[in-house]
Formats: sequence, structure tokens, C-alpha cells
Amino acid sequence: MKVANRLADLGLTLPAAPTPVAAYVPAVRTGNLVYTAGQIPMSEGALIATGPVPSAVGIEAAQTAARQCGLNALAVLANILDGDLDRVTRIVRLGVFVASDPGFTDQPKVANGASELMLQIFGEAGRHARAAVGSIGLPLGATVEVEVVAEVR
Amino acid sequence: MKVANRLADLGLTLPAAPTPVAAYVPAVRTGNLVYTAGQIPMSEGALIATGPVPSAVGIEAAQTAARQCGLNALAVLANILDGDLDRVTRIVRLGVFVASDPGFTDQPKVANGASELMLQIFGEAGRHARAAVGSIGLPLGATVEVEVVAEVR
Amino acid sequence: MKVANRLADLGLTLPAAPTPVAAYVPAVRTGNLVYTAGQIPMSEGALIATGPVPSAVGIEAAQTAARQCGLNALAVLANILDGDLDRVTRIVRLGVFVASDPGFTDQPKVANGASELMLQIFGEAGRHARAAVGSIGLPLGATVEVEVVAEVR
Repeated sequence: MKVANRLADLGLTLPAAPTPVAAYVPAVRTGNLVYTAGQIPMSEGALIATGPVPSAVGIEAAQTAARQCGLNALAVLANILDGDLDRVTRIVRLGVFVASDPGFTDQPKVANGASELMLQIFGEAGRHARAAVGSIGLPLGATVEVEVVAEVR
Repeated sequence: MKVANRLADLGLTLPAAPTPVAAYVPAVRTGNLVYTAGQIPMSEGALIATGPVPSAVGIEAAQTAARQCGLNALAVLANILDGDLDRVTRIVRLGVFVASDPGFTDQPKVANGASELMLQIFGEAGRHARAAVGSIGLPLGATVEVEVVAEVR
Repeated sequence: MKVANRLADLGLTLPAAPTPVAAYVPAVRTGNLVYTAGQIPMSEGALIATGPVPSAVGIEAAQTAARQCGLNALAVLANILDGDLDRVTRIVRLGVFVASDPGFTDQPKVANGASELMLQIFGEAGRHARAAVGSIGLPLGATVEVEVVAEVR
């Protein structure tokens, strides 16, 4: 399995798919598209980054948080694809929201944490469209939230 | 009609589909998907909640506003489906924006007002992916804005 | 070509499709849908509007910026459609984020800059669903960001 090999090469293990923090589900498939819920940087039951960039969290830590959101999205995708991420034919879109102080405008740098993960894991199929946007505040105080639209088979 | 029965059981009447506040349309169908415009908590021509949570609007009132956004989205969906909400086969995604004071992080609780409505009305088919995000300010001062992607037949 | 004629009638020339400012691509096609990346008001390599509305940028200038975002989205769509915008069968959705001061609630007026462009260029096929949302800050300090979902053939 190609994706499994890439994950291993990168020293990454998929986390357990996070449980939604409210009345919704982790992902929905319609036709060949899967929409994931917005993922926050949960790792082993706790957020790895909370509060706005840069006053509470620096850019590098925020990138790491965005990468964690991406990993959680992969876990959610794997779950809905019976564990087989090779059935992802394209990452279509990432929506990335970054908790931001007034005047912070480096949302793209933060969002790259998730985007580069997709390129590393899926190669050409990981090249996606993206909107990166600053937010005054995110669920549970998360520093980043990432949602994914993926094309699957 | 199942959905009609559920609405009646909940004592709910669909509002008239709100008129867009600007140069766009309430909903667009492409293939089996309908994208609604962002819905604000209009009821009988006026917003039922304006300003950020929690300084201007408490969480419970914001949940009620989110539910009203959801009702308006259902009205818009009904309109594009010739009045027949039984043609909704799945609520795919809710995008929920919550006008938030700095430090407010309970966007998921607010968004549940819309999410729980979808579960009540559509049952299993109402289980959706969701992104809940804080916003510094929403159209006309609305406390909440909800957009919906639905799969239809 | 109808769209080319409309562009000419409006005195508009499509800009070169902007290069993404980070690790993503300008647009992705999946089935009959194209998702563009979030477009900022770049013109000839520089942003034409930076900072929030209204303290840094007035509503009219922000509308012009939203229109520029729309033009950039059209350039991106043209690129993925071998230059032929007549293959756009419907503009499905605009996501419009407006950098906003606290208390600013005229995001719809700003977003109309992009929406009206779509109507002028595509006529009936340009009528779209839309979410307009205030943001505490956008990439590179942009005043507006617009992403597009389009149905194509």
C-alpha cells in the first residue's frame, strides 16, 4: 500500500480518528467526494496548540498544529475508506482557519503545515486548492482548524 | 411525507425562504448536490440575534439563532426541490460561522442549534460533516451564519 | 466565444492566473466541479487593497478588490479549462471573506464586487450561492479573499 509506505517513511502513525466534539459526524461521502468535519489539533485527547498566532502560539508551533489537523483528517478519511487511503484519488480542497491576533497575516505559512503533509503523503494526488483565513477564535480554543474535501474511489 | 410529519411533530413551520441580501441566489443545484447560500437568523423579516457571543448574545440565544439559520436553509432547500424535502438524501456539510468576542471558544455549542435540527428532521440522513468557526463580524450584524451542502434526488 | 465578448464589452482583460502564495495549486477539477483556491486582490504582482474595512479600506475600494479577486478566479478557471471560459456551465458557490474591523457588518456589499462580476460575465449561469463572512485577518494582509466552486464541461 503506497500511502502506508509513505506514512512509514515519514515516521508517521495515523492517530485514532478524533470523535466530533458535538452533534455531527467525522466525515460524509457523497458520490466520489468525502467531506471531513473541521479537524482541530487533537493528539491523544488534548489540543497541542491553543490560542491565537502569534501571541499565544508561534508560527512554527502553529504549522505543527496544522500538520496535526491534517493527520487527523487522514485518520478520518481512512476510517470512511475501510482503512485504505490508497482509495484517495485526489485531495481537492483544504479549508484552513487560523486563530489570529489583529494584524497577523501569515495564515498561508501556518496552513502549509497541513498542505505539505498532503503532498508528502499523496504526491501529485495531494495537490489541492486551498483557502487560508484568519479567525477571531476556534472551537475549544484551537489554534488551527482544517477541513478537507477529497475525491475517492 | 416523512419530513413534513417530523416538522409537524416538532411544532415547526418552514418559514418563507429568505431573500438574499445581495447579488446572489438562495441555492444552486449541481448534479445531486445543492449548495445553499449562507443563512442568517432572519425570522419574519428581522434578525432574531445580532452581535457577538457572549457579550451581546448568550449561548442559548445563539443556539436558537443557529437553529433559525437551519430552518431558513431548509426553506431554501424545499424551494429548490419543489417543496419536497423528502428528496434530501443526505445533509453533507454545514459551515457555521459564529460572531465571537475575543476569547470565545464555544462555537461548537452554538452550531449544535443547527446540527440538532438536521438530526431531528432527517434522522440518519441528517448526520453531516461540519466546520464551526468564530468570525469577527457577520452580514447585517447577524450572530450566526449557516451554509449547507445537501445531497438530493 | 460569448464570455470573451462579454469581457471585451466590459473592457476587461483576464490577468495572468496568480501563482499560489504557498504549497497548493490554483484549482482542482473533480468530475464536473472545479474548486479554485482562495483568491486575493493581486494585480500585476501587488495587492490593490490591504487591511480591514472600513478603517484601512472603504467599502467602494473593498468592492473593487473583491471584483479583482473574482477576475483572478476567472483567470484560474480559464487556465484549467484550456482558456475556454464558455465551458463554465454554472458558478455554483462563492466563499467571500472580508477583513473587517470590529462592528463592521457590510460584508455583503463588499462581496457584491465579486458576485456582480460573475453575473456580468456569465449571465444566468453566473447566479451563485454565496457565504460572506468577516475575518480578523487574511493572507498577506489582503482585504478580501474569494474562492469559487464552478460547474464545468
